[in-house]
Amino acid sequence: MSFAASVLTLYPEMFPGALGLSLAGRALERGDWSLDAVQIRDFATDKHRTVDDSPAGGGAGMVMRADVLARAIDRTGPQGDPRPKLLMSPRGKPLTQARVRELAAGPGVIILCGRFEGVDQRVIEARNLEEVSVGDFILSGGEPAALVLLDAVVRLLPGVMGNERSGEEESFENGLLEHPHYTRPQEFEGRQIPDVLISGNHGKIAQWRHEQAEKLTAERRPDLLAGKS
Amino acid sequence: MSFAASVLTLYPEMFPGALGLSLAGRALERGDWSLDAVQIRDFATDKHRTVDDSPAGGGAGMVMRADVLARAIDRTGPQGDPRPKLLMSPRGKPLTQARVRELAAGPGVIILCGRFEGVDQRVIEARNLEEVSVGDFILSGGEPAALVLLDAVVRLLPGVMGNERSGEEESFENGLLEHPHYTRPQEFEGRQIPDVLISGNHGKIAQWRHEQAEKLTAERRPDLLAGKS
Repeated sequence: MSFAASVLTLYPEMFPGALGLSLAGRALERGDWSLDAVQIRDFATDKHRTVDDSPAGGGAGMVMRADVLARAIDRTGPQGDPRPKLLMSPRGKPLTQARVRELAAGPGVIILCGRFEGVDQRVIEARNLEEVSVGDFILSGGEPAALVLLDAVVRLLPGVMGNERSGEEESFENGLLEHPHYTRPQEFEGRQIPDVLISGNHGKIAQWRHEQAEKLTAERRPDLLAGKS
Repeated sequence: MSFAASVLTLYPEMFPGALGLSLAGRALERGDWSLDAVQIRDFATDKHRTVDDSPAGGGAGMVMRADVLARAIDRTGPQGDPRPKLLMSPRGKPLTQARVRELAAGPGVIILCGRFEGVDQRVIEARNLEEVSVGDFILSGGEPAALVLLDAVVRLLPGVMGNERSGEEESFENGLLEHPHYTRPQEFEGRQIPDVLISGNHGKIAQWRHEQAEKLTAERRPDLLAGKS
């Protein structure tokens, strides 16, 4: 069984989008994973195919209805479907590479993409949706976030990229930002590749890279270093 | 002058992608913003259109060449182009709603999408690229991250969504996650809309929402509360 992604959205035409090209797209063609974009409006029950209503208690915008979403979720992932059900939301837990790895090791995901002001809280609770955030900013909807999450997961699926970047991922999970990279030409606008990298001394190179990674992390992301201790 | 986005990528066909639909797509059609996807390979100088080479000092993967990228950047944003030059990278500063607002208030952006192991450090320094991260996870390339950043920015451009969600954005910038939402039906699988929200007492509703937002933030994102003090 390959990894099966189902995305519940008001814009199924946004998928596969960028995921239909490059690494993820070739893996999709090979059947290393599958993607099913489900139109939430198909689960409305009125002739206008209404999926939202005004917020209880007043306020701007519209809220996605619990009953419509529940029908969409239940049809997409009936009882016994082992896939986790995610809701892309800025209120969620920030996505980490560790969670990406867990998802990639599992059977797939069901992803609900919120729009408008948000989603009725009761369907989040009743269907035990895992709220996931890709960052502290507001998107027009959950769809771009779902594309990011799926891109991160798909590249880790067996056969998709082999082992070529596994080392780099480890270093991210070690809690450090990656060291700087250099390649030819040896000189670029008067700037040289650091001598150590062309020394041929693998021990020194590894040490230099680790020091650079620690320095960069301390400068830019002291929160990552704090999380390690 | 409308907001002008230029994206430097090996996969220009990934754009506009999801940004060609919904809010961002309608705004693109109206000319509220423009999007120019530039093929980095067009700036290679050999017949194989090579953009990368093996990392100095050894290691897995390939590194994007400083000289090729510099030519692509210089042609896309010549001297005097006021747009900030971003590099989507997990090593970057995490994107925030405050930075999104700054970008939306400016003339546009030039976004370089990295691929492979990364980008030669010298072009980052020589062209003063601002490294921006959308989260602590690894993508197949900068393209999905660029889609997310542009989606966040475009929805804030004048005329794109009016004022309908300005309140909600403020609340995010106040450093709290948003309170739960409810809408009709009044009962969903035995779960009621909280009484306070149908009380008609606007003071109590505002107070309840603020308390819920504080409670949720304390549970899920104590880091946001710590950042406020």
